[in-house]
Amino acid sequence: MNLKIALLGGDGIGPEVLAQAVKCLKAVEETFNHRFTYTEAPVGAVAISNDGKALPKETLQLCKDSDAILFGAIGALEYDNDPEAKVRPEQGLLKLRKELGLFASIRPVKVFPILSKNSVLPKKIVKGTDFVIYRELTGGIYYGKKSLNDDATLASDLCEYSEKEIARIAHLSFKAAKKRRGRLTLVDKANVLETSRLWRKVVTEISDSYPEVHFESIFIDNVVVQMMTNPSQFDVILTENMFGDILTSLGSVIIGSIGLLPSASVGSENAMFSPFHGSYPQAKGKNIANPVASIFSTVLMLQHFGLYEEANAVATAIQKSFKKGITTTDILGSEKYGTDYVGDYIADHIVDSDDDSNI
Amino acid sequence: MNLKIALLGGDGIGPEVLAQAVKCLKAVEETFNHRFTYTEAPVGAVAISNDGKALPKETLQLCKDSDAILFGAIGALEYDNDPEAKVRPEQGLLKLRKELGLFASIRPVKVFPILSKNSVLPKKIVKGTDFVIYRELTGGIYYGKKSLNDDATLASDLCEYSEKEIARIAHLSFKAAKKRRGRLTLVDKANVLETSRLWRKVVTEISDSYPEVHFESIFIDNVVVQMMTNPSQFDVILTENMFGDILTSLGSVIIGSIGLLPSASVGSENAMFSPFHGSYPQAKGKNIANPVASIFSTVLMLQHFGLYEEANAVATAIQKSFKKGITTTDILGSEKYGTDYVGDYIADHIVDSDDDSNI
Ligand SMILES: CC(C)[C@H](C(=O)O)[C@@H](O)C(=O)O
Ligand SMILES: CC(C)[C@H](C(=O)O)[C@@H](O)C(=O)O
Repeated sequence: MNLKIALLGGDGIGPEVLAQAVKCLKAVEETFNHRFTYTEAPVGAVAISNDGKALPKETLQLCKDSDAILFGAIGALEYDNDPEAKVRPEQGLLKLRKELGLFASIRPVKVFPILSKNSVLPKKIVKGTDFVIYRELTGGIYYGKKSLNDDATLASDLCEYSEKEIARIAHLSFKAAKKRRGRLTLVDKANVLETSRLWRKVVTEISDSYPEVHFESIFIDNVVVQMMTNPSQFDVILTENMFGDILTSLGSVIIGSIGLLPSASVGSENAMFSPFHGSYPQAKGKNIANPVASIFSTVLMLQHFGLYEEANAVATAIQKSFKKGITTTDILGSEKYGTDYVGDYIADHIVDSDDDSNI
Repeated sequence: MNLKIALLGGDGIGPEVLAQAVKCLKAVEETFNHRFTYTEAPVGAVAISNDGKALPKETLQLCKDSDAILFGAIGALEYDNDPEAKVRPEQGLLKLRKELGLFASIRPVKVFPILSKNSVLPKKIVKGTDFVIYRELTGGIYYGKKSLNDDATLASDLCEYSEKEIARIAHLSFKAAKKRRGRLTLVDKANVLETSRLWRKVVTEISDSYPEVHFESIFIDNVVVQMMTNPSQFDVILTENMFGDILTSLGSVIIGSIGLLPSASVGSENAMFSPFHGSYPQAKGKNIANPVASIFSTVLMLQHFGLYEEANAVATAIQKSFKKGITTTDILGSEKYGTDYVGDYIADHIVDSDDDSNI
């Protein structure tokens, strides 16, 4: 298969972890005889320092013209600490999501049994955790009208949702639940928010079309407790943009490191694959960032294109690195290896399991 | 001291846990020679079923005329599952907070070492946890304009904050940090939200007036991970209404039960004391709800009125119940006692430590 892949490394550790993902894809090309072409483009703080724009026109166009986008990370300290900055790195990511219509962020939270001691939670709680969060990604308070009055004494953000926005991701998530263990949990704050009540109404109506799926709703303040004390009860979690941001991050606590989890952001035309984690600027250039989340995002990408054997080969190589203890400093109980070394190890162990010469 | 106390039991387990708190206050009156008067009033689902209003005028007036309000809990399943209900129990609580100007919810998260095995988190992480969350309680998305269009296809909630709203709770929280370990952490999502940027700007400016307090800001998606993996780093956490709801609930995971933690909601004129937990309708009338959070809320109330010895006496009696394993089913590793029994035990063990006859 020929695939045009856009590489958006972004800020902080983004480019270095993405480089490891590309190594692995190159190994996939060679092993399985594919031809992927890679084109790099700037986004985020890096892009702002070039020409003042967090998402240059050329980068957006490249993404539109590509089959898939691999994304690194975004965000830089100098902007976090400057509430008055006019242009912000995150705008690049938010605009990209919006312009490409990537309305669903799909974030699997599944334990790697071999790493379960890495979690702060006890084994008996972590065991069997295997859920996926469907986070709405192009609506809600992230994108509603923002305002700040002239003397900067009053600010506002509007959280807005339409039935249509809710319905399209709801259908996606019910379909996923049907193929999985048949449970869907909607997270909202319907006892307070009007938008949550619309979510609850629309999703409850849609649930009638999926009688095989057990549907329930739960408040955001309750679900955070449930997720830490009984995560294996969840199968598919559906939620709006802001709650989804918080919940996916919390999900990484179960796994033990935010450096392991990937996400797919999909729309009707485009798809983007990236780690859960942020730009971790403190680690930039130190060769200590965990490349697994980024490498894992290629597994989601390969699956997206129906390349299941290839996806498996990458996943298996990642598992092998865990088994051999070839991991970065965020993973307990082994020697510590650099970002590069872990990337090389995984890329070197990508094999075609059907190929006799590998047995 | 004479105190007029309004008792708002509310829904679900609210009235039964509140009854235990009152038992303890009566023991305090007797032991320390005070005179408290108690007046009950309806709020929430109970009030709606009486006369259609979640907060009857008489209840509000009673609260205004009282020195303190003891609150139970609010919420009922029939409303949670009816997104189209016009009147909702929670409106009673939200209106009460607003009308009384209770702009700061103060929620201490402190481990009881003797119960530390009740937490899902390991002892080495739980150990030393002692922070307090200052949650803004009368602004933000809870109170901004809500709308739903006529054909119920578009909903919105406005999150709005003024400099003044931010400044008054910021000062309270900095003062608290000054008296405590001198650390203040502002939680926001300043990389996305305009209101968060105003919070960051205003609080950063105010931090200059408290040079003894170390001030830092952190994103909401990051803080949930930090809170589960390294909670002892926090001293005072300051945040807006919605994030505060989520964070305080998550704080209970560290403690091991949401049935243990109290909160004080304060304004310039009134103060209200209540458990963290909700109405837990499934447990109503079963005599299984943990009364400690409600009893603990009287400790905060007594402290609020400068009755430190009295507050201590209640806290000591609670500790004694833990030591003796006189706890409800949510607490691990002891026989299980009923709500009533635990309440009686604690009330019976409230003694004046200065009184020789008790030695
Ligand atoms: C960088 C930030 C804008 C982003 C978000 O909040 O969506 C990130 O936290 C994420 O979860 O993808
Ligand atoms: C009952 C509900 C409206 C309330 C809130 O969200 O504020 C509760 O969860 C709380 O934390 O006090």
